[in-house]
Amino acid sequence: MSSESPLRRGIVFIVSAPSGAGKTTISRAAVKEIGGLTPSISLTTRRPRSGEIEGIDYQFVSEEDFQRSLEANELAEWARVFDACYGTPRRPLDNAVCEGHDILLDIDIQGARQLRQRYPDDAVTIFVLPPSFEELEGRLRKRGTEDSPAIARRLQRAREEFQAAPEYDYLIINANLDESLAQLRAIITAERSRVGRLREEFAPWKR
Amino acid sequence: MSSESPLRRGIVFIVSAPSGAGKTTISRAAVKEIGGLTPSISLTTRRPRSGEIEGIDYQFVSEEDFQRSLEANELAEWARVFDACYGTPRRPLDNAVCEGHDILLDIDIQGARQLRQRYPDDAVTIFVLPPSFEELEGRLRKRGTEDSPAIARRLQRAREEFQAAPEYDYLIINANLDESLAQLRAIITAERSRVGRLREEFAPWKR
Repeated sequence: MSSESPLRRGIVFIVSAPSGAGKTTISRAAVKEIGGLTPSISLTTRRPRSGEIEGIDYQFVSEEDFQRSLEANELAEWARVFDACYGTPRRPLDNAVCEGHDILLDIDIQGARQLRQRYPDDAVTIFVLPPSFEELEGRLRKRGTEDSPAIARRLQRAREEFQAAPEYDYLIINANLDESLAQLRAIITAERSRVGRLREEFAPWKR
Repeated sequence: MSSESPLRRGIVFIVSAPSGAGKTTISRAAVKEIGGLTPSISLTTRRPRSGEIEGIDYQFVSEEDFQRSLEANELAEWARVFDACYGTPRRPLDNAVCEGHDILLDIDIQGARQLRQRYPDDAVTIFVLPPSFEELEGRLRKRGTEDSPAIARRLQRAREEFQAAPEYDYLIINANLDESLAQLRAIITAERSRVGRLREEFAPWKR
């Protein structure tokens, strides 16, 4: 299935969530199962976690390379989260909007804020929440990638992040991956049907 | 499946289309197959067409009764289309929004304009277009409910109505009923996930 639509501009779908809410799993599944979505690969200065692959999960770069990209205005958004920097290359997003491709980003709240400003007409923002705070805590402990103080820090941050939900366009309560994916798929289909995204010259009522 | 959601306000889904584009078929199927949608039954002063049922398709009323409803401010919108009046009772819409029910209306462009003004935050408007103008003409002739001058008059009106598409939130090109229904279902699911519709006091990040 081609991801290109000459009829309309491309859409920048942004999925954010507190860590442990399941946004990476949902985003990954969405790109795999929903047609015409290109994932955006972030730059990060943090070390790969077990199983993460360079160029698929992230582009792992040094602090110096990250700084160079930033100064060359090559990033559409960036943020420092805990001790690492994360950023999104700008060029693929600009091209996607222009060429009618849709792109899916899995980024944090600070990044979402920057992209909402940069692409006010083309960004669609989706906030994924765990069914409850207790569930989130359980998921983080089960993941086992971090020690207790790190988890406590993430949970404190998650409590703060919950407050950002009203900034988003859509909310997905992720109790069940299949249902959440169906909901995301519906959001994507609906946004692709928006009259406001049609290019003037291709509008069907002009043909 | 209950159509009530205490979490959010009810949504007023409005489907419009030139006659023959298939909006009645889609709306009917949507109410039947998508959960939690109440159809709005319009008042009309026109005579029932073959197969139409009082209280299901329309409430068929006299010109005098229609005038009385209008003067008593019981209509949320109304329009004169060709030689008949059509109107939507206001009370069921107000209740639906208030109680968190979703309602689906199958009304014309004039009616949609009035409802968009009356329910600026709660109306979601969907325009259904036939794949082409030629296809529309074929469908109208095939329906065989009207003579040639009436069809010509409808086609002229449809050409004018095509111009109203940009006023709508969503566009469905109805080439295939199943696909159009899936698209409408996605729009409804997506709109139900909108953060902006959540009631402040029920917002999950406050619980």
